[in-house]
Amino acid sequence: MKGELLYEGKAKKIYSIPGKANEVWVEFKNSLTAFNALKKGEFEGKGRINCEIATLIFQYLKKKGVPSHWIENPGPSEMIVEKVQIIPLEVVVRNTLAGSTAKKLGIEEGKKLQKPLVEFYYKDDALADPFVSDDQILMMEISNEQEIKILKAKALQINDLLKDLFQAAGIELIDFKIEFGKNRQGEVLLADEISPDCCRLWDLKSREKLDKDRFRRDLGSVKESYEEVLKRLQEVKGL
Amino acid sequence: MKGELLYEGKAKKIYSIPGKANEVWVEFKNSLTAFNALKKGEFEGKGRINCEIATLIFQYLKKKGVPSHWIENPGPSEMIVEKVQIIPLEVVVRNTLAGSTAKKLGIEEGKKLQKPLVEFYYKDDALADPFVSDDQILMMEISNEQEIKILKAKALQINDLLKDLFQAAGIELIDFKIEFGKNRQGEVLLADEISPDCCRLWDLKSREKLDKDRFRRDLGSVKESYEEVLKRLQEVKGL
Repeated sequence: MKGELLYEGKAKKIYSIPGKANEVWVEFKNSLTAFNALKKGEFEGKGRINCEIATLIFQYLKKKGVPSHWIENPGPSEMIVEKVQIIPLEVVVRNTLAGSTAKKLGIEEGKKLQKPLVEFYYKDDALADPFVSDDQILMMEISNEQEIKILKAKALQINDLLKDLFQAAGIELIDFKIEFGKNRQGEVLLADEISPDCCRLWDLKSREKLDKDRFRRDLGSVKESYEEVLKRLQEVKGL
Repeated sequence: MKGELLYEGKAKKIYSIPGKANEVWVEFKNSLTAFNALKKGEFEGKGRINCEIATLIFQYLKKKGVPSHWIENPGPSEMIVEKVQIIPLEVVVRNTLAGSTAKKLGIEEGKKLQKPLVEFYYKDDALADPFVSDDQILMMEISNEQEIKILKAKALQINDLLKDLFQAAGIELIDFKIEFGKNRQGEVLLADEISPDCCRLWDLKSREKLDKDRFRRDLGSVKESYEEVLKRLQEVKGL
């Protein structure tokens, strides 16, 4: 079933699937990285947990009318997805300020925004994924005006749906990073993954962090937090 | 004539003018700073040269229909300007990539752009003037959508006019930084200064740098280059 290794990233391996030119096989790794891979770690079960969370979210979004690259899971930490050409932009949506933008603008972490903020970062490890404006994206011909509008609208729609989902799981969605890709038909699909690796998730009551910041900031209980997120999402009724 | 010192910046001192509530007196200093004032220098005559260059440019722009805060010069390194509330954005226009954006995006310095790129930096010394997107400007309520459009349009208009002016002086306008302020009537005026301190100016033929990069990058002949820019601008016919 699984063909040759096409690409190994920080958290996933991508394989071809013989006889299926429009699909790839994604294997979620147990590794964890932060600060453009300057900090490295791992824990047993991490690949499986993230794969389960991402699957649950892709299925939820599909039911709500948001297409993604997800097709099916052949194993507990493996996904078969539609092959897409990734648009090299990390699309970040923030409901509450935290992380790099809070620091850059001198605003205290935890400030709730009146409306969600969409940001773009140019996906390039060698450049440490720099923050870019719409005009810089156009100048570099990474995307065009029409597509930037689509990316923003999709990101905000996904944000609305994810806020509801996490709210039902007793979790506040602070911010998240997503990626989009284009399939053979040129359709823009949500791709990559959505997991505690690329979201900030705070407990609704205690505001305790349940995401990769536990690893980034040496807060401990990384595995337990990822498991807690999965457990709470699985318990959401009518998902 | 000159009243109390209202503000001392890196390159200018601002004084009140007794009896004239809507005007201030600007004194151009001989100091030169770079990298958010981590690097400091000065040379005799620098305040006068920059004041003369800025005056010449403000007068040229006025003739072309672009209003600025400039009123008159009471002395060789002094300007009387309309009092404005500065919009805390450094507005950068790039015709050719150089400096921070070239570095950030991994593009070689000197790449000519198909069309000019407008960028905004949030004016805050403590934060080292971070690059911000339109959406971040709106989120921070620094400006609004309508005003951002005005700033971009004015910046591009000024760029067109300055390109012509410098071209006639045998100089290629690579990029420049300007600031805008609002007067009592709420009109958006070009403010601060335009000088080799805040422009990249390359000799049209040799591409030799004639601006503050000579100081930033220890290229020598800083004073001579500033003098050369002034001399060439003064020689432009029909200015």
